[in-house]
Amino acid sequence: MREVFQQELHEVQERLVRIADLVADAIDKATTAFNGQEVSLAESVIADDHLIDELARSLDELAIDILARQQPVARDLRVVVSALRISASLERMGDLAEHIAQLSRYRFPEKVVPKTLRPTFKELGRLDVAIARKLTRLLETEDADLAEEIRNDDDLVDELHLSVFDKVLGETWKGAASDTVDATLASRYHERFADHAVSIAKKVQYLQTGAWVVPTP
Amino acid sequence: MREVFQQELHEVQERLVRIADLVADAIDKATTAFNGQEVSLAESVIADDHLIDELARSLDELAIDILARQQPVARDLRVVVSALRISASLERMGDLAEHIAQLSRYRFPEKVVPKTLRPTFKELGRLDVAIARKLTRLLETEDADLAEEIRNDDDLVDELHLSVFDKVLGETWKGAASDTVDATLASRYHERFADHAVSIAKKVQYLQTGAWVVPTP
Repeated sequence: MREVFQQELHEVQERLVRIADLVADAIDKATTAFNGQEVSLAESVIADDHLIDELARSLDELAIDILARQQPVARDLRVVVSALRISASLERMGDLAEHIAQLSRYRFPEKVVPKTLRPTFKELGRLDVAIARKLTRLLETEDADLAEEIRNDDDLVDELHLSVFDKVLGETWKGAASDTVDATLASRYHERFADHAVSIAKKVQYLQTGAWVVPTP
Repeated sequence: MREVFQQELHEVQERLVRIADLVADAIDKATTAFNGQEVSLAESVIADDHLIDELARSLDELAIDILARQQPVARDLRVVVSALRISASLERMGDLAEHIAQLSRYRFPEKVVPKTLRPTFKELGRLDVAIARKLTRLLETEDADLAEEIRNDDDLVDELHLSVFDKVLGETWKGAASDTVDATLASRYHERFADHAVSIAKKVQYLQTGAWVVPTP
């Protein structure tokens, strides 16, 4: 029984890694599309988001099934409950990648943001992709250093997010209202994406340290 | 044992209702502050958000504790797992109410949005408050009509959300970039708030119908 349970936990972990991997691919394509206006990449992110949703839902069913059959307690129980929460965050990260792709497709063949903001969004995209790749490895290896790196990268994302507002609200901003809307939404999507990764990293860390308090999302 | 379990489920439900009630108060104050610029209301929403976070976390601990001690199966298990998900959505709705309050406090004593958008935001606020109050009653009574009403209200919120962009991107828009940023963010917060309520309503409905498929968030 115990062995079956460990196999099932391993299956849960593998599925989380698979979903995280798809999310990393999605944000990679979405931000490449956003920064370079490659509309086919944006379209593939939009077309593929349902795969992430379906995998997340099927993982949830597996986790609930494990709870019912194995009736885990203590740390094992928390691992399964955390898997449910992590899958919800990953699903949401997929949605945010899709939103970035949608902004990009909507403006095609125009670029989404004006020249002055492009270096900022390039860096935001690079960081979100790096965070997503690290998240996949964190779920695979549970290497605590990766959790720390994700947190640091998220601090940089937050700074860049604020700098977008500084630019848009500055005196030199010449963008049309549509540029302002796009920059505001895109920056928010990039920032929320990184936030979800931090919240997942905290859950992984919490499982390792065995601290009793569940971190807030 | 069974009776204790039913009492505990009842306790979970009562706590969800209490959190939903606080969230409804928060969005009520936040949108009143936003539309009328009553800064003390905005400040109380910001100061009180941690209460919602703490209640949600303590509910999560109770739910995990119930899973460990009572080892529920079938529908009972799904009720407890759904409670965990509902508390996460409520916690996020509290954050969104806080974000609306923050926008309002940040611009004080100025109004957050220019005159032309005020009727739209007044209506968005009214709908979000109505949705939150219905959600509290839905969690209390499990009345399926309320779930339906929440869904209909959310459709209206989505229409208003789109109409904000129509106005901001229209030729008559004379707002400064800061107005455009505020309107974009505020509209998005209102829309996400209603989305979370719909996702909770779906979970309540799913528990009633016993449909096997977990609704996606």
